[in-house]
Amino acid sequence: MTETADLNTVLGKAVTILRAFRPDDQAVSLAELVQRTGLHKATVHRLSGELVANRLLERTDGGYRLSGGLFELGMLASLERSLLEVAMPFLQDLYERTHETVHLGLREGHDVVYVAKIGGHRQARVPSRTGGRMPLHCTAIGKALLAHADADLRRAVLTGPLERRTPHTVVAPGILRRQLQRVTETGVAFEREESAVGLVCVAAPVLGRQDEPLAAISVAGPGSRFRPEAQATAVRAAAAALGSTLIRRDFLR
Amino acid sequence: MTETADLNTVLGKAVTILRAFRPDDQAVSLAELVQRTGLHKATVHRLSGELVANRLLERTDGGYRLSGGLFELGMLASLERSLLEVAMPFLQDLYERTHETVHLGLREGHDVVYVAKIGGHRQARVPSRTGGRMPLHCTAIGKALLAHADADLRRAVLTGPLERRTPHTVVAPGILRRQLQRVTETGVAFEREESAVGLVCVAAPVLGRQDEPLAAISVAGPGSRFRPEAQATAVRAAAAALGSTLIRRDFLR
Repeated sequence: MTETADLNTVLGKAVTILRAFRPDDQAVSLAELVQRTGLHKATVHRLSGELVANRLLERTDGGYRLSGGLFELGMLASLERSLLEVAMPFLQDLYERTHETVHLGLREGHDVVYVAKIGGHRQARVPSRTGGRMPLHCTAIGKALLAHADADLRRAVLTGPLERRTPHTVVAPGILRRQLQRVTETGVAFEREESAVGLVCVAAPVLGRQDEPLAAISVAGPGSRFRPEAQATAVRAAAAALGSTLIRRDFLR
Repeated sequence: MTETADLNTVLGKAVTILRAFRPDDQAVSLAELVQRTGLHKATVHRLSGELVANRLLERTDGGYRLSGGLFELGMLASLERSLLEVAMPFLQDLYERTHETVHLGLREGHDVVYVAKIGGHRQARVPSRTGGRMPLHCTAIGKALLAHADADLRRAVLTGPLERRTPHTVVAPGILRRQLQRVTETGVAFEREESAVGLVCVAAPVLGRQDEPLAAISVAGPGSRFRPEAQATAVRAAAAALGSTLIRRDFLR
Protein backbone atom coordinates (compact mmCIF):
# COMPACT_ATOMS: atom_id res chain seq x y z
CA MET A 1 0.00 0.00 0.00
CA THR A 2 1.27 3.42 -0.82
CA GLU A 3 -0.33 5.25 2.04
CA THR A 4 1.27 7.93 4.07
CA ALA A 5 1.04 7.87 7.83
CA ASP A 6 1.77 10.58 10.34
CA LEU A 7 5.32 9.76 11.37
CA ASN A 8 5.15 12.26 14.23
CA THR A 9 2.93 9.95 16.23
CA VAL A 10 3.66 6.57 17.78
CA LEU A 11 0.57 5.17 16.12
CA GLY A 12 1.59 6.47 12.70
CA LYS A 13 4.99 4.85 13.07
CA ALA A 14 3.46 1.55 14.19
CA VAL A 15 1.06 1.55 11.24
CA THR A 16 3.96 2.34 8.92
CA ILE A 17 5.71 -0.79 10.17
CA LEU A 18 2.60 -2.92 9.58
CA ARG A 19 2.09 -1.49 6.08
CA ALA A 20 5.74 -2.22 5.23
CA PHE A 21 4.79 -5.89 4.87
CA ARG A 22 4.10 -7.10 1.32
CA PRO A 23 1.84 -9.86 0.07
CA ASP A 24 4.68 -12.21 -0.80
CA ASP A 25 6.52 -11.80 2.50
CA GLN A 26 6.92 -14.82 4.72
CA ALA A 27 9.17 -13.13 7.26
CA VAL A 28 10.75 -9.70 7.31
CA SER A 29 13.89 -9.01 9.30
CA LEU A 30 14.33 -6.03 11.61
CA ALA A 31 16.98 -4.60 9.26
CA GLU A 32 14.61 -4.92 6.31
CA LEU A 33 11.81 -3.20 8.26
CA VAL A 34 14.20 -0.35 9.10
CA GLN A 35 15.06 -0.02 5.44
CA ARG A 36 11.47 -0.18 4.20
CA THR A 37 10.08 2.29 6.74
CA GLY A 38 12.96 4.72 6.98
CA LEU A 39 12.46 4.79 10.75
CA HIS A 40 15.31 4.59 13.27
CA LYS A 41 16.41 1.09 14.16
CA ALA A 42 15.70 1.69 17.86
CA THR A 43 12.18 2.86 17.04
CA VAL A 44 11.44 -0.14 14.83
CA HIS A 45 12.85 -2.47 17.46
CA ARG A 46 10.76 -0.99 20.27
CA LEU A 47 7.53 -0.72 18.27
CA SER A 48 7.89 -4.21 16.78
CA GLY A 49 8.09 -5.52 20.33
CA GLU A 50 4.93 -3.62 21.25
CA LEU A 51 3.17 -4.87 18.10
CA VAL A 52 4.10 -8.43 19.09
CA ALA A 53 2.83 -7.83 22.64
CA ASN A 54 -0.46 -6.58 21.18
CA ARG A 55 -0.69 -9.58 18.80
CA LEU A 56 -0.53 -7.62 15.55
CA LEU A 57 2.92 -8.99 14.67
CA GLU A 58 4.53 -12.28 15.52
CA ARG A 59 8.13 -13.35 15.67
CA THR A 60 9.10 -16.08 13.27
CA ASP A 61 12.27 -17.58 11.84
CA GLY A 62 14.09 -14.74 10.18
CA GLY A 63 12.13 -11.87 11.65
CA TYR A 64 8.50 -10.85 11.89
CA ARG A 65 5.23 -11.53 10.13
CA LEU A 66 1.75 -10.04 10.40
CA SER A 67 -0.18 -12.10 12.91
CA GLY A 68 -3.47 -13.93 13.08
CA GLY A 69 -4.66 -11.25 15.48
CA LEU A 70 -4.42 -8.72 12.67
CA PHE A 71 -6.37 -11.05 10.36
CA GLU A 72 -9.10 -11.37 12.98
CA LEU A 73 -9.25 -7.62 13.49
CA GLY A 74 -9.37 -6.94 9.74
CA MET A 75 -12.29 -9.33 9.31
CA LEU A 76 -14.25 -7.24 11.82
CA ALA A 77 -14.33 -4.32 9.36
CA SER A 78 -18.09 -4.10 9.06
CA LEU A 79 -18.52 -2.92 5.48
CA GLU A 80 -16.28 -5.54 3.90
CA ARG A 81 -17.52 -8.34 6.14
CA SER A 82 -21.22 -7.69 5.64
CA LEU A 83 -20.72 -7.30 1.89
CA LEU A 84 -18.82 -10.59 1.78
CA GLU A 85 -21.45 -12.44 3.80
CA VAL A 86 -24.37 -11.26 1.69
CA ALA A 87 -22.52 -11.72 -1.60
CA MET A 88 -21.10 -15.22 -1.03
CA PRO A 89 -24.07 -17.24 -2.36
CA PHE A 90 -24.20 -15.13 -5.53
CA LEU A 91 -20.46 -15.56 -6.04
CA GLN A 92 -20.82 -19.31 -5.53
CA ASP A 93 -23.52 -19.51 -8.20
CA LEU A 94 -21.24 -17.77 -10.69
CA TYR A 95 -18.35 -20.03 -9.79
CA GLU A 96 -20.42 -23.16 -10.21
CA ARG A 97 -21.69 -21.93 -13.55
CA THR A 98 -18.27 -21.05 -14.96
CA HIS A 99 -15.58 -22.74 -12.86
CA GLU A 100 -13.50 -19.63 -13.51
CA THR A 101 -12.21 -17.02 -11.04
CA VAL A 102 -14.98 -14.97 -9.42
CA HIS A 103 -14.26 -11.62 -7.74
CA LEU A 104 -16.12 -9.20 -5.52
CA GLY A 105 -14.59 -5.73 -5.33
CA LEU A 106 -15.30 -2.24 -4.14
CA ARG A 107 -13.74 1.11 -4.83
CA GLU A 108 -11.20 2.86 -2.62
CA GLY A 109 -9.90 6.03 -4.24
CA HIS A 110 -8.81 5.22 -7.78
CA ASP A 111 -8.39 1.52 -7.02
CA VAL A 112 -10.44 -1.63 -6.75
CA VAL A 113 -10.04 -3.48 -3.45
CA TYR A 114 -10.92 -7.17 -3.76
CA VAL A 115 -13.16 -8.37 -0.94
CA ALA A 116 -13.39 -11.95 -2.23
CA LYS A 117 -11.67 -14.12 -4.80
CA ILE A 118 -13.01 -17.58 -5.52
CA GLY A 119 -11.36 -20.10 -7.78
CA GLY A 120 -10.96 -23.77 -8.45
CA HIS A 121 -8.09 -26.09 -9.33
CA ARG A 122 -7.92 -24.95 -12.92
CA GLN A 123 -8.06 -21.22 -12.18
CA ALA A 124 -6.09 -18.86 -14.37
CA ARG A 125 -3.17 -16.87 -13.01
CA VAL A 126 -4.84 -13.63 -11.97
CA PRO A 127 -2.95 -10.63 -10.55
CA SER A 128 -5.62 -10.02 -7.88
CA ARG A 129 -5.77 -11.25 -4.29
CA THR A 130 -8.29 -10.85 -1.49
CA GLY A 131 -7.52 -7.55 0.23
CA GLY A 132 -5.33 -6.48 -2.71
CA ARG A 133 -5.71 -3.51 -5.04
CA MET A 134 -5.73 -2.90 -8.78
CA PRO A 135 -6.23 0.37 -10.66
CA LEU A 136 -9.83 1.06 -11.70
CA HIS A 137 -9.11 1.77 -15.37
CA CYS A 138 -7.54 -1.58 -16.30
CA THR A 139 -9.97 -4.04 -14.69
CA ALA A 140 -13.54 -5.01 -15.56
CA ILE A 141 -14.64 -4.47 -11.95
CA GLY A 142 -12.94 -1.08 -11.95
CA LYS A 143 -14.67 0.00 -15.15
CA ALA A 144 -18.04 -1.20 -13.83
CA LEU A 145 -17.51 0.92 -10.70
CA LEU A 146 -16.11 3.90 -12.55
CA ALA A 147 -18.94 4.02 -15.09
CA HIS A 148 -21.38 4.58 -12.23
CA ALA A 149 -19.15 6.81 -10.10
CA ASP A 150 -19.94 10.49 -9.75
CA ALA A 151 -18.71 12.82 -12.48
CA ASP A 152 -15.88 14.30 -10.41
CA LEU A 153 -14.28 10.97 -9.73
CA ARG A 154 -14.70 9.83 -13.34
CA ARG A 155 -13.07 13.03 -14.54
CA ALA A 156 -10.20 12.70 -12.04
CA VAL A 157 -9.41 9.18 -13.26
CA LEU A 158 -9.78 10.05 -16.95
CA THR A 159 -7.55 13.11 -16.69
CA GLY A 160 -5.00 11.47 -14.41
CA PRO A 161 -2.18 9.23 -15.61
CA LEU A 162 -3.55 5.88 -16.86
CA GLU A 163 -0.92 3.30 -16.03
CA ARG A 164 -0.12 0.85 -18.83
CA ARG A 165 -0.13 -2.59 -17.22
CA THR A 166 0.01 -4.55 -20.48
CA PRO A 167 0.23 -3.64 -24.18
CA HIS A 168 -3.60 -3.89 -24.17
CA THR A 169 -4.31 -1.52 -21.28
CA VAL A 170 -6.58 1.30 -22.44
CA VAL A 171 -4.60 4.45 -21.73
CA ALA A 172 -6.41 6.80 -24.13
CA PRO A 173 -8.98 8.77 -22.09
CA GLY A 174 -11.33 9.07 -25.08
CA ILE A 175 -11.53 5.31 -25.63
CA LEU A 176 -11.94 4.65 -21.92
CA ARG A 177 -14.73 7.26 -21.76
CA ARG A 178 -16.61 5.53 -24.59
CA GLN A 179 -16.14 2.17 -22.87
CA LEU A 180 -17.61 3.57 -19.66
CA GLN A 181 -20.57 4.93 -21.63
CA ARG A 182 -21.15 1.40 -23.01
CA VAL A 183 -21.06 0.04 -19.46
CA THR A 184 -23.92 2.29 -18.38
CA GLU A 185 -25.89 1.26 -21.50
CA THR A 186 -25.31 -2.48 -21.26
CA GLY A 187 -24.85 -3.04 -17.55
CA VAL A 188 -21.57 -4.94 -18.01
CA ALA A 189 -17.89 -4.06 -18.36
CA PHE A 190 -15.26 -6.07 -20.21
CA GLU A 191 -11.51 -6.34 -19.80
CA ARG A 192 -9.41 -7.96 -22.47
CA GLU A 193 -5.82 -8.55 -21.32
CA GLU A 194 -5.73 -5.04 -19.84
CA SER A 195 -4.45 -6.01 -16.38
CA ALA A 196 -2.62 -9.23 -17.32
CA VAL A 197 -1.74 -10.77 -20.67
CA GLY A 198 -3.93 -13.75 -21.49
CA LEU A 199 -6.72 -12.82 -19.07
CA VAL A 200 -10.24 -11.69 -20.01
CA CYS A 201 -13.01 -10.66 -17.67
CA VAL A 202 -16.63 -9.51 -17.47
CA ALA A 203 -18.02 -7.49 -14.54
CA ALA A 204 -21.29 -5.90 -13.50
CA PRO A 205 -21.89 -3.15 -10.97
CA VAL A 206 -23.89 -3.74 -7.80
CA LEU A 207 -26.03 -0.63 -7.46
CA GLY A 208 -27.72 0.84 -4.40
CA ARG A 209 -31.01 2.64 -3.93
CA GLN A 210 -29.86 5.78 -5.79
CA ASP A 211 -27.99 3.76 -8.42
CA GLU A 212 -24.74 4.46 -6.56
CA PRO A 213 -22.13 1.74 -7.08
CA LEU A 214 -21.77 -0.31 -3.89
CA ALA A 215 -19.48 -2.98 -5.34
CA ALA A 216 -18.99 -5.03 -8.49
CA ILE A 217 -18.83 -8.72 -9.34
CA SER A 218 -16.71 -10.30 -12.06
CA VAL A 219 -15.74 -13.58 -13.68
CA ALA A 220 -12.25 -13.81 -15.18
CA GLY A 221 -10.59 -16.56 -17.16
CA PRO A 222 -7.91 -17.26 -19.74
CA GLY A 223 -8.75 -15.88 -23.18
CA SER A 224 -7.87 -19.27 -24.64
CA ARG A 225 -11.03 -20.89 -23.25
CA PHE A 226 -13.18 -18.26 -21.54
CA ARG A 227 -15.72 -16.17 -23.46
CA PRO A 228 -16.71 -13.24 -21.22
CA GLU A 229 -19.62 -12.26 -23.53
CA ALA A 230 -21.23 -15.63 -22.86
CA GLN A 231 -21.36 -14.84 -19.12
CA ALA A 232 -22.57 -11.23 -19.39
CA THR A 233 -26.20 -12.06 -18.66
CA ALA A 234 -25.33 -14.25 -15.69
CA VAL A 235 -22.97 -11.69 -14.15
CA ARG A 236 -25.49 -8.87 -14.67
CA ALA A 237 -28.24 -10.95 -13.08
CA ALA A 238 -26.05 -11.86 -10.09
CA ALA A 239 -25.08 -8.23 -9.53
CA ALA A 240 -28.71 -7.09 -9.78
CA ALA A 241 -29.86 -9.74 -7.31
CA LEU A 242 -27.07 -8.84 -4.89
CA GLY A 243 -27.96 -5.15 -5.20
CA SER A 244 -31.61 -5.85 -4.34
CA THR A 245 -30.57 -7.90 -1.35
CA LEU A 246 -28.19 -5.19 -0.09
CA ILE A 247 -30.89 -2.51 -0.51
CA ARG A 248 -33.37 -4.66 1.42
CA ARG A 249 -30.81 -4.94 4.21
CA ASP A 250 -30.03 -1.21 4.20
CA PHE A 251 -26.40 -1.75 3.32
CA LEU A 252 -24.64 1.59 2.93
CA ARG A 253 -21.22 2.49 1.64
CA MET B 1 -12.04 -10.76 21.34
CA THR B 2 -11.12 -11.15 24.95
CA GLU B 3 -7.51 -10.19 24.66
CA THR B 4 -5.62 -8.01 27.02
CA ALA B 5 -3.48 -5.20 25.76
CA ASP B 6 -0.87 -3.17 27.55
CA LEU B 7 -2.80 -0.08 28.58
CA ASN B 8 0.39 1.69 29.59
CA THR B 9 1.36 2.23 25.96
CA VAL B 10 -0.26 4.36 23.28
CA LEU B 11 -0.25 1.37 20.97
CA GLY B 12 -1.93 -0.85 23.55
CA LYS B 13 -4.67 1.72 24.06
CA ALA B 14 -5.20 2.13 20.31
CA VAL B 15 -5.46 -1.64 19.84
CA THR B 16 -7.90 -1.79 22.74
CA ILE B 17 -10.12 0.70 20.90
CA LEU B 18 -9.96 -1.36 17.68
CA ARG B 19 -10.75 -4.60 19.54
CA ALA B 20 -13.73 -2.95 21.23
CA PHE B 21 -15.64 -3.30 17.94
CA ARG B 22 -17.95 -6.31 17.65
CA PRO B 23 -19.02 -8.28 14.61
CA ASP B 24 -22.57 -6.92 14.62
CA ASP B 25 -21.53 -3.26 14.97
CA GLN B 26 -22.37 -0.87 12.18
CA ALA B 27 -21.21 2.25 14.02
CA VAL B 28 -19.99 2.77 17.56
CA SER B 29 -20.26 6.14 19.26
CA LEU B 30 -17.43 7.78 21.16
CA ALA B 31 -19.36 7.37 24.41
CA GLU B 32 -19.82 3.66 23.72
CA LEU B 33 -16.11 3.25 22.94
CA VAL B 34 -15.28 4.96 26.24
CA GLN B 35 -17.57 2.57 28.06
CA ARG B 36 -16.31 -0.55 26.29
CA THR B 37 -12.62 0.23 26.71
CA GLY B 38 -12.63 1.83 30.15
CA LEU B 39 -10.23 4.47 28.82
CA HIS B 40 -10.56 8.19 29.52
CA LYS B 41 -12.84 10.05 27.14
CA ALA B 42 -10.04 12.43 26.12
CA THR B 43 -7.77 9.48 25.33
CA VAL B 44 -10.40 7.72 23.22
CA HIS B 45 -11.18 10.97 21.41
CA ARG B 46 -7.55 11.67 20.60
CA LEU B 47 -6.63 8.12 19.60
CA SER B 48 -9.80 7.67 17.50
CA GLY B 49 -8.74 10.73 15.55
CA GLU B 50 -5.28 9.25 15.04
CA LEU B 51 -6.78 5.91 13.99
CA VAL B 52 -8.93 7.74 11.44
CA ALA B 53 -5.87 9.65 10.18
CA ASN B 54 -4.07 6.32 9.74
CA ARG B 55 -7.08 4.75 7.98
CA LEU B 56 -7.75 2.05 10.55
CA LEU B 57 -11.04 3.65 11.65
CA GLU B 58 -13.49 5.75 9.72
CA ARG B 59 -16.12 8.22 10.84
CA THR B 60 -19.67 7.31 9.93
CA ASP B 61 -23.18 8.33 10.92
CA GLY B 62 -23.40 7.71 14.63
CA GLY B 63 -19.72 7.30 15.34
CA TYR B 64 -16.89 5.13 14.08
CA ARG B 65 -16.43 1.87 12.27
CA LEU B 66 -13.38 -0.25 11.42
CA SER B 67 -12.17 0.83 8.01
CA GLY B 68 -11.32 -0.80 4.72
CA GLY B 69 -7.67 -0.01 5.46
CA LEU B 70 -7.83 -2.42 8.38
CA PHE B 71 -9.42 -5.09 6.16
CA GLU B 72 -6.60 -4.67 3.63
CA LEU B 73 -3.97 -4.88 6.33
CA GLY B 74 -5.55 -7.97 7.89
CA MET B 75 -5.58 -9.74 4.54
CA LEU B 76 -1.81 -9.28 4.35
CA ALA B 77 -1.34 -11.64 7.32
CA SER B 78 0.76 -14.21 5.50
CA LEU B 79 -0.23 -17.41 7.22
CA GLU B 80 -3.98 -16.93 6.87
CA ARG B 81 -3.74 -15.55 3.34
CA SER B 82 -1.51 -18.28 1.95
CA LEU B 83 -3.62 -20.96 3.65
CA LEU B 84 -6.77 -19.42 2.15
CA GLU B 85 -5.31 -19.21 -1.33
CA VAL B 86 -4.07 -22.78 -1.41
CA ALA B 87 -7.22 -24.16 0.21
CA MET B 88 -9.86 -22.37 -1.89
CA PRO B 89 -10.12 -24.94 -4.74
CA PHE B 90 -10.50 -27.78 -2.23
CA LEU B 91 -13.19 -25.85 -0.36
CA GLN B 92 -14.99 -25.15 -3.63
CA ASP B 93 -15.03 -28.85 -4.50
CA LEU B 94 -16.65 -29.65 -1.15
CA TYR B 95 -19.18 -26.87 -1.59
CA GLU B 96 -20.15 -28.04 -5.05
CA ARG B 97 -20.51 -31.58 -3.83
CA THR B 98 -22.71 -30.73 -0.84
CA HIS B 99 -24.09 -27.21 -1.28
CA GLU B 100 -23.74 -26.90 2.47
CA THR B 101 -21.54 -24.54 4.52
CA VAL B 102 -17.82 -25.24 4.12
CA HIS B 103 -15.27 -23.97 6.64
CA LEU B 104 -11.52 -23.69 6.85
CA GLY B 105 -10.16 -23.07 10.34
CA LEU B 106 -6.98 -23.07 12.34
CA ARG B 107 -6.19 -23.12 16.02
CA GLU B 108 -5.36 -20.09 18.15
CA GLY B 109 -5.05 -20.99 21.83
CA HIS B 110 -8.14 -22.98 22.84
CA ASP B 111 -10.21 -21.62 19.94
CA VAL B 112 -10.81 -22.24 16.26
CA VAL B 113 -10.35 -19.16 14.08
CA TYR B 114 -12.25 -19.43 10.79
CA VAL B 115 -10.15 -18.42 7.80
CA ALA B 116 -12.91 -19.06 5.26
CA LYS B 117 -16.64 -19.73 5.26
CA ILE B 118 -18.37 -20.64 2.02
CA GLY B 119 -22.09 -21.05 1.62
CA GLY B 120 -24.94 -20.81 -0.83
CA HIS B 121 -28.47 -19.44 -0.78
CA ARG B 122 -29.87 -22.31 1.25
CA GLN B 123 -27.09 -22.32 3.85
CA ALA B 124 -27.99 -23.16 7.42
CA ARG B 125 -27.69 -20.61 10.20
CA VAL B 126 -24.20 -21.25 11.50
CA PRO B 127 -22.64 -19.41 14.47
CA SER B 128 -19.29 -19.02 12.69
CA ARG B 129 -17.97 -16.15 10.60
CA THR B 130 -14.74 -15.56 8.73
CA GLY B 131 -12.24 -14.20 11.22
CA GLY B 132 -14.46 -15.32 14.11
CA ARG B 133 -13.71 -17.77 16.90
CA MET B 134 -15.40 -20.78 18.47
CA PRO B 135 -14.16 -23.01 21.30
CA LEU B 136 -12.25 -26.09 20.15
CA HIS B 137 -14.26 -28.62 22.18
CA CYS B 138 -17.71 -27.93 20.68
CA THR B 139 -16.93 -27.82 16.95
CA ALA B 140 -15.96 -30.53 14.48
CA ILE B 141 -13.02 -28.45 13.24
CA GLY B 142 -11.91 -27.88 16.82
CA LYS B 143 -12.05 -31.58 17.65
CA ALA B 144 -10.12 -32.44 14.48
CA LEU B 145 -7.41 -29.95 15.51
CA LEU B 146 -7.42 -30.97 19.16
CA ALA B 147 -7.13 -34.70 18.43
CA HIS B 148 -3.82 -34.02 16.68
CA ALA B 149 -2.54 -31.33 19.04
CA ASP B 150 0.30 -32.04 21.40
CA ALA B 151 -0.48 -33.75 24.68
CA ASP B 152 -0.04 -30.60 26.79
CA LEU B 153 -2.63 -28.64 24.88
CA ARG B 154 -5.08 -31.55 24.81
CA ARG B 155 -4.70 -31.93 28.57
CA ALA B 156 -5.15 -28.20 29.14
CA VAL B 157 -8.42 -28.17 27.19
CA LEU B 158 -9.71 -31.40 28.75
CA THR B 159 -8.98 -30.28 32.29
CA GLY B 160 -10.18 -26.73 31.75
CA PRO B 161 -13.81 -25.64 31.93
CA LEU B 162 -15.75 -26.98 28.90
CA GLU B 163 -18.38 -24.36 28.09
CA ARG B 164 -21.87 -25.75 27.44
CA ARG B 165 -23.05 -24.01 24.25
CA THR B 166 -26.13 -26.19 23.76
CA PRO B 167 -27.73 -29.08 25.67
CA HIS B 168 -25.70 -31.37 23.35
CA THR B 169 -22.25 -29.87 23.96
CA VAL B 170 -19.90 -32.55 25.24
CA VAL B 171 -18.72 -31.23 28.62
CA ALA B 172 -17.59 -34.52 30.16
CA PRO B 173 -13.80 -34.76 29.67
CA GLY B 174 -13.92 -38.58 29.51
CA ILE B 175 -16.40 -38.60 26.62
CA LEU B 176 -14.52 -35.87 24.78
CA ARG B 177 -11.25 -37.79 25.24
CA ARG B 178 -12.78 -40.90 23.67
CA GLN B 179 -14.15 -38.82 20.80
CA LEU B 180 -10.69 -37.39 20.15
CA GLN B 181 -9.28 -40.92 20.16
CA ARG B 182 -11.85 -41.86 17.50
CA VAL B 183 -10.75 -38.85 15.43
CA THR B 184 -7.17 -40.05 15.30
CA GLU B 185 -8.40 -43.54 14.34
CA THR B 186 -10.86 -42.50 11.64
CA GLY B 187 -9.41 -39.22 10.38
CA VAL B 188 -12.69 -37.33 10.83
CA ALA B 189 -14.45 -35.49 13.66
CA PHE B 190 -18.19 -35.05 14.07
CA GLU B 191 -20.27 -32.43 15.81
CA ARG B 192 -23.94 -33.00 16.48
CA GLU B 193 -25.69 -29.85 17.65
CA GLU B 194 -22.79 -29.13 20.01
CA SER B 195 -22.22 -25.50 18.97
CA ALA B 196 -25.74 -24.67 17.72
CA VAL B 197 -29.02 -26.56 17.99
CA GLY B 198 -30.04 -28.11 14.68
CA LEU B 199 -26.55 -28.05 13.18
CA VAL B 200 -24.38 -31.07 12.38
CA CYS B 201 -20.87 -31.08 10.98
CA VAL B 202 -17.99 -33.26 9.83
CA ALA B 203 -14.36 -32.11 9.79
CA ALA B 204 -10.95 -33.51 8.92
CA PRO B 205 -7.52 -32.30 10.01
CA VAL B 206 -5.00 -30.95 7.51
CA LEU B 207 -1.70 -32.42 8.67
CA GLY B 208 1.84 -31.26 7.99
CA ARG B 209 5.07 -33.14 7.45
CA GLN B 210 5.31 -34.30 11.08
CA ASP B 211 1.55 -34.95 11.31
CA GLU B 212 1.16 -31.63 13.10
CA PRO B 213 -2.28 -30.07 12.56
CA LEU B 214 -1.97 -27.06 10.23
CA ALA B 215 -5.69 -26.44 9.82
CA ALA B 216 -8.97 -28.31 9.41
CA ILE B 217 -11.77 -28.38 6.85
CA SER B 218 -15.45 -28.99 7.59
CA VAL B 219 -18.89 -29.21 6.02
CA ALA B 220 -21.85 -28.23 8.21
CA GLY B 221 -25.56 -28.37 7.56
CA PRO B 222 -28.93 -28.68 9.24
CA GLY B 223 -29.52 -32.06 10.87
CA SER B 224 -32.87 -32.21 9.10
CA ARG B 225 -31.30 -32.81 5.69
CA PHE B 226 -27.52 -33.15 6.07
CA ARG B 227 -25.86 -36.49 6.88
CA PRO B 228 -22.28 -35.74 7.95
CA GLU B 229 -21.32 -39.44 7.79
CA ALA B 230 -22.06 -39.45 4.07
CA GLN B 231 -19.45 -36.73 3.51
CA ALA B 232 -16.72 -38.15 5.77
CA THR B 233 -14.74 -39.69 2.92
CA ALA B 234 -14.92 -36.53 0.79
CA VAL B 235 -13.86 -34.25 3.67
CA ARG B 236 -11.01 -36.58 4.63
CA ALA B 237 -9.81 -36.72 1.02
CA ALA B 238 -9.97 -32.93 0.63
CA ALA B 239 -8.01 -32.40 3.86
CA ALA B 240 -5.39 -34.96 2.82
CA ALA B 241 -4.98 -33.37 -0.61
CA LEU B 242 -4.70 -29.90 0.91
CA GLY B 243 -2.12 -31.20 3.41
CA SER B 244 0.02 -32.66 0.60
CA THR B 245 -0.17 -29.40 -1.31
CA LEU B 246 0.83 -27.35 1.75
CA ILE B 247 3.75 -29.68 2.49
CA ARG B 248 4.91 -29.39 -1.11
CA ARG B 249 4.84 -25.61 -0.74
CA ASP B 250 6.67 -25.68 2.59
CA PHE B 251 3.77 -24.08 4.42
CA LEU B 252 4.60 -23.74 8.12
CA ARG B 253 2.47 -22.78 11.10
